[in-house]
Amino acid sequence: MSNIINIKEKLNIFSDLWSPKVIAEMNNYQFKVAKVKGEFVWHSHKETDETFLVIDGELTIEFRDSKVKLLKGEMYVVPKGIEHKPLAKEECHIMLIEPKNIINTGDLSSDLTAENDIWI
Amino acid sequence: MSNIINIKEKLNIFSDLWSPKVIAEMNNYQFKVAKVKGEFVWHSHKETDETFLVIDGELTIEFRDSKVKLLKGEMYVVPKGIEHKPLAKEECHIMLIEPKNIINTGDLSSDLTAENDIWI
Repeated sequence: MSNIINIKEKLNIFSDLWSPKVIAEMNNYQFKVAKVKGEFVWHSHKETDETFLVIDGELTIEFRDSKVKLLKGEMYVVPKGIEHKPLAKEECHIMLIEPKNIINTGDLSSDLTAENDIWI
Repeated sequence: MSNIINIKEKLNIFSDLWSPKVIAEMNNYQFKVAKVKGEFVWHSHKETDETFLVIDGELTIEFRDSKVKLLKGEMYVVPKGIEHKPLAKEECHIMLIEPKNIINTGDLSSDLTAENDIWI
């Protein structure tokens, strides 16, 4: 059986930015939490949609022709193949939901490319 | 493009119990919100895991040999095929994440079987 997962407790046990940690798995999908601040890199995931849920703070997701600002308790599904750049002026805590084996920077290799499938 | 989804605002626009409403779709998965109070029915989903996330209140999930109590901000993945019965003493607001076309009572037809794929 799986365990009870407290999202905020999971966020309390690490401090590195832009480095998603897996907290749960459902079929071949994963729930990941991350702390973000500053600007990420433009990238896309050609194979999948990607869901962002803000746990605390404010997250902006820029697209090539628009942007959205997400507050605590708000979510957004970035459609597959769409270029996007997350950014946060102040530290922001998010949950990501997406299939296993998705790399945070998509096809792009960057200093911000995080090790994948790290569980906490 | 998809829209910004405010989970609590979605929960404010309906009041019926045990009747999940779809608020977002990611690939072939759906995010649903529901208000629950009292006892649901024993059931299982033989084809999929099912994720529960408590938005407000307390949710108990009983299994045949154990139970878990989830508080606000806590989540739990019920493995596929495992019989479970959700219950809540007081009204509780939850988000469910699971593939499309999953019926709330699984294989069981019940008075509590809700219409599927209702979007709000």
